[in-house]
Amino acid sequence: MKSGLGFLIAALRCEIEGLEQLDRTSELVGTIGRLVHALQRERGLSNVLLASHGARFAEQRREQIAECLRMEAAVRQSFEELAAQRRIGNGARLFSRIAWVLPGLDALPELRHSVGALKIDAAESTAAFVKLIAGLLAVVFEAADGATDPEISRVLVALFNFMQGKEFAGQERACGAAAFASGRNDGARQQQWLHLIDSQERCFKVFVSFSSAALAEVWRTNQPPGQIAELERLRRIACAAPAGVSLDPELSPVWFDCCTHRIDAMQAVEEQLAAQLRSICKQKTTEVRDELAAHEALLLTLADASEPPGAAFFESHGLAQPAGDAAPYGRQLERSILDMVQEQSHRLQAMSDELDTVRTALNERKVVERAKGLLMAHRRISEQEAHKMLRQTAMNQGRRLTEVAESVLAMAELLPRNAAP
Amino acid sequence: MKSGLGFLIAALRCEIEGLEQLDRTSELVGTIGRLVHALQRERGLSNVLLASHGARFAEQRREQIAECLRMEAAVRQSFEELAAQRRIGNGARLFSRIAWVLPGLDALPELRHSVGALKIDAAESTAAFVKLIAGLLAVVFEAADGATDPEISRVLVALFNFMQGKEFAGQERACGAAAFASGRNDGARQQQWLHLIDSQERCFKVFVSFSSAALAEVWRTNQPPGQIAELERLRRIACAAPAGVSLDPELSPVWFDCCTHRIDAMQAVEEQLAAQLRSICKQKTTEVRDELAAHEALLLTLADASEPPGAAFFESHGLAQPAGDAAPYGRQLERSILDMVQEQSHRLQAMSDELDTVRTALNERKVVERAKGLLMAHRRISEQEAHKMLRQTAMNQGRRLTEVAESVLAMAELLPRNAAP
Repeated sequence: MKSGLGFLIAALRCEIEGLEQLDRTSELVGTIGRLVHALQRERGLSNVLLASHGARFAEQRREQIAECLRMEAAVRQSFEELAAQRRIGNGARLFSRIAWVLPGLDALPELRHSVGALKIDAAESTAAFVKLIAGLLAVVFEAADGATDPEISRVLVALFNFMQGKEFAGQERACGAAAFASGRNDGARQQQWLHLIDSQERCFKVFVSFSSAALAEVWRTNQPPGQIAELERLRRIACAAPAGVSLDPELSPVWFDCCTHRIDAMQAVEEQLAAQLRSICKQKTTEVRDELAAHEALLLTLADASEPPGAAFFESHGLAQPAGDAAPYGRQLERSILDMVQEQSHRLQAMSDELDTVRTALNERKVVERAKGLLMAHRRISEQEAHKMLRQTAMNQGRRLTEVAESVLAMAELLPRNAAP
Repeated sequence: MKSGLGFLIAALRCEIEGLEQLDRTSELVGTIGRLVHALQRERGLSNVLLASHGARFAEQRREQIAECLRMEAAVRQSFEELAAQRRIGNGARLFSRIAWVLPGLDALPELRHSVGALKIDAAESTAAFVKLIAGLLAVVFEAADGATDPEISRVLVALFNFMQGKEFAGQERACGAAAFASGRNDGARQQQWLHLIDSQERCFKVFVSFSSAALAEVWRTNQPPGQIAELERLRRIACAAPAGVSLDPELSPVWFDCCTHRIDAMQAVEEQLAAQLRSICKQKTTEVRDELAAHEALLLTLADASEPPGAAFFESHGLAQPAGDAAPYGRQLERSILDMVQEQSHRLQAMSDELDTVRTALNERKVVERAKGLLMAHRRISEQEAHKMLRQTAMNQGRRLTEVAESVLAMAELLPRNAAP
């Protein structure tokens, strides 16, 4: 029969397994980040190619496709390795997300063929890339949702939001590239563009509140004021111009390069976040391993001991020293081990409490997404309009976005359902 | 390389593993329920023995101890079996809870010796049993918290709350047994008694809202009006009497039997809940296994197929029939599988959303417990006083208990900290 100490050891072994799994998941997240980065660039180049009727970026796009293929191979490899694991925490949902994204990857050659032959327009091409990248980010979200350590969960939430913000920046690059290359902008695209700017800023705000001060600082220094000024100037030219006013197509590569510098700088921050994630996983694993080794040594010594242990024993195992000789050593030892069990139990409880707090940020995202989905279905409006509706309501009522989203979900039955057209 | 279908299969395998683990955990929960029931009875008998200075229930207590030893052996056996599993979802916290409760079980012989020798009083004995049972219920809570299926999670939440309510009923029996056997009651005990009645009712309310209509009905029919009337009469005699008024010690066995009938009826409901839990686990496992087998057969057929499949193939695998012959069968098949992947993905998403809802009930309990703990530490008050303070604030402000608890946690830094005496 296992003693309390024996189960304490079993608990530590589970903790180590969980941390090792987080380490593998973190590696996957890093690999996905690099593929997403490559696809974002391909999306932007494809848009310029399409909007310029094949005049611009044909060669850059070919090179970028080669880069994407390398990154895709790495992601597929990571997926395979994950599937080969004996047991994955939230495996059912994680694998289901992967199953969902794979057909999108399989359809890439056909998409690229259509783009190369100028058989689809920039909007269609963008939509296909956006959907694929959203699927890849959903895998990252699931990884963040499955984390069982609050500190790691915190970095994953920061990383997920950073990746999501970067994706909105990438969509903005593609949107602007199409606008400048085609030489015109319109009201609908301007609205979408402003929505993308707003969404980016929201994500980076969450990133800053969850990342370490050092990384938030790296993020700040990675955005030189001159670059931001140029970005804002081009945004203003395209978005503040009255609808129908023509845009200078020569600004297309200027816009593309400006955004690309910014997004590449984001990629550098993302790589640092991913590296930090893996180093935390490794460090925590080492800590718990050390604790486990100490406990196992203690258990072994106790099993071998033919007589009650002396003072030296308590000292060498980091146990509280018996006070006086009022109680026999055996009893003192029991108490020391009980203290250890309680300490471990409190540590896990504190971790669990903190995890609840961190996960609130993820749950809030889920609630908002569900409320948006509901509004889109009931009112037949776009994701962007649904978001605007929620945000406007929150501002009008002085409530938080999540609170409004929760009310929407609670009142689901009462929402007006548009009659079929 | 695995296809989307391959990962769908991997997702189903994870789901099955999760369900099998839930089945084992459910078995453990049932075993713990039986030990808790036996210990509750021993606690009550011990109190009568102590309060009557050894005059009553000596023989019944001896028999009950033998029953407890049998149940304890079964629980220890279940613990061992769980620890032998390769991988347990929330293993770290579950094993840590077990590590915490084992020293309490190990200390039982000493507690029983003290009770038998009348060396401790009823309050001390009750406190020891209450702590041990709380530890056992914490294991059940952790099991409920680790469930990944919303329907099973729902039953576990119902079961946990029922067990907790039954424990408050058991504490009420012990409290009343000591009061009647000693022939007197006092203000402090009356307060505690009323708190126990209130806590019971709260738990059973949650149980009813989470259990099936059939089980809620079983619970109603298990409480005959005559029995309730007798219980309320005895409660009134002891709790409404002015402090210091003596109680008839002859009512001690009457009270004990009345409570015991009620608690034994609860045990019958609890057994039904536990049986329902296990049957849901088994049924779900069978369903997912069937789906897995169908998908695996499909994968195998596709790997062997030398030419695009015919209409019969689609039909035999429950796939959408190709519409007309506009597209080649290969493409139609791809689309059918994609539909299947999306369907599975939506199913998991819906499950995850529902799980969030069910877990809210558990999280609310955690929030209230943490807020109580904070108040107890900061204001040096009892658990009962902390609960009363939260409830009173909620009533005064017309807010939910959880909302008040959340505010307490949010304002932790601002709480008055009592100076050391």
